[in-house]
Amino acid sequence: MITRTDVTDAAGRIAGRVRRTPVAEVDPGTFAGPVWLKLEYMQHSGSFKARGAFNRILAATESGELTGAGVIAASGGNAGLAVAYAAGRLGVPAEVYVPATAPDVKVTRLRALGATVVQHGQQYSEAYEAARKREADTGALFCHAYDQPEIAAGQGTLALELSEQIGDVDTVIVAVGGGGLMAGVAAALEGTARIVGVEPVTIPTLHAALAAGQPVDVAVGGLAADSLGARRIGEIAFAVAVRCGVRSVLVPDEALVAARRLLWDHRRVAVELGAAAALAALTTGA
Amino acid sequence: MITRTDVTDAAGRIAGRVRRTPVAEVDPGTFAGPVWLKLEYMQHSGSFKARGAFNRILAATESGELTGAGVIAASGGNAGLAVAYAAGRLGVPAEVYVPATAPDVKVTRLRALGATVVQHGQQYSEAYEAARKREADTGALFCHAYDQPEIAAGQGTLALELSEQIGDVDTVIVAVGGGGLMAGVAAALEGTARIVGVEPVTIPTLHAALAAGQPVDVAVGGLAADSLGARRIGEIAFAVAVRCGVRSVLVPDEALVAARRLLWDHRRVAVELGAAAALAALTTGA
Repeated sequence: MITRTDVTDAAGRIAGRVRRTPVAEVDPGTFAGPVWLKLEYMQHSGSFKARGAFNRILAATESGELTGAGVIAASGGNAGLAVAYAAGRLGVPAEVYVPATAPDVKVTRLRALGATVVQHGQQYSEAYEAARKREADTGALFCHAYDQPEIAAGQGTLALELSEQIGDVDTVIVAVGGGGLMAGVAAALEGTARIVGVEPVTIPTLHAALAAGQPVDVAVGGLAADSLGARRIGEIAFAVAVRCGVRSVLVPDEALVAARRLLWDHRRVAVELGAAAALAALTTGA
Repeated sequence: MITRTDVTDAAGRIAGRVRRTPVAEVDPGTFAGPVWLKLEYMQHSGSFKARGAFNRILAATESGELTGAGVIAASGGNAGLAVAYAAGRLGVPAEVYVPATAPDVKVTRLRALGATVVQHGQQYSEAYEAARKREADTGALFCHAYDQPEIAAGQGTLALELSEQIGDVDTVIVAVGGGGLMAGVAAALEGTARIVGVEPVTIPTLHAALAAGQPVDVAVGGLAADSLGARRIGEIAFAVAVRCGVRSVLVPDEALVAARRLLWDHRRVAVELGAAAALAALTTGA
């Protein structure tokens, strides 16, 4: 579980390490009220994940949990890139586990950031298990992609920044995969803003968990699997979602494709499908 | 010639018609001092040219110069798109002349914005001459790509907005093709900021004009010809540059390519080569 204090602590810890990314107002009249886009794809390493990665590593440095074994992660995507980037900036060794099937381009990017890349197994779950075993062997600091307090709290600093930039917000619409960003944002704005979690109908981790009353496995499919494809919502994310009354909405894959296209055509914003989910919730009326 | 008053008048005229585009700070330590990027590629129609187009058409509406014949332009690039867009929003008919060699994608975009596209001649200069003749025949309002007071003053509103966003600026580095944006920015900030005009070595319109003491033709070549490829600096731009002491620097084409690549790799900013010229001036030390 995380609270607003965890997020404000994170903000202090990572200040100067992350970019204050721009916001852009959607053209007035497009939707019922004013809507702003937080252009977090311009963040270091390409996503909000850099916030959580810095917070995790810096908090562990303060607490003495970080040893000479450095940090370890299991992700060929944004989470892995963020850990590699943050570790590199902080001069900490990083190991990143990915499946043997990971595309060369991802492995190359991770190595370019200074990480040691270990390819293991055919699926992400195998790489994850191998990384956890390695963590136990070496004492490296594991940086979970979403289900860790410092990771989720770090992501939430995006919401504090947003409030500084545009003032009080009524509603934040946020894409949900494992739920780290949603948890951080909801904790940061608890009691002051409504939070809506958006997921593709093909990967309804939050939706299924709220229906079941606990995190449950879902089938991972559809076009956004590589950006939002967690098999179940994180424990932290679920607890925060229930506590803060986060609403869940689903959007079809076609709406993600259309929303991403809108972002490119109207703004030259180039993002992965998952990052278009929040806009898709508006364009579909979800 | 234009002055700061022309720019502030333009800002009042086009308020609500154009987007207040975001700014992003370059990572501290990258250059000697703080540097901000104005992300004007997110403007309506994809460039700052929308500012000048709205100002030109709205000023002519106020003065009674605009007739039922609408507006006319000669450009298959950003200037043409901006005129088509602004005219469409204002419910004014628009004719845009382009050479017969203009790519289908440009013609299609212009038509999608509601413009009547006329393809004439093999080169831009032939399309331009045909458009001026058509203007004389119909009384349509000609929207020059850069060398018109309302066009240049409209572009300068970008500098007023920038000052509102980040406070006083020491120096504005601006790419120069025909010089409309440079003229507007220099007029807007006259006496308060230093203006540096950047050009590819392959299209030195400002540089050659300052050396000759008057606008002179230059050879148009190199990789940025389609975005900065004016044959000579505009009269307005030259006059403002001399009055305001605008400095001229040149950058090689390779630096444009490298700067554009940096913008993409570090920020996912996708722009044409001309839009990377200002950054290239910094990265080359020019």
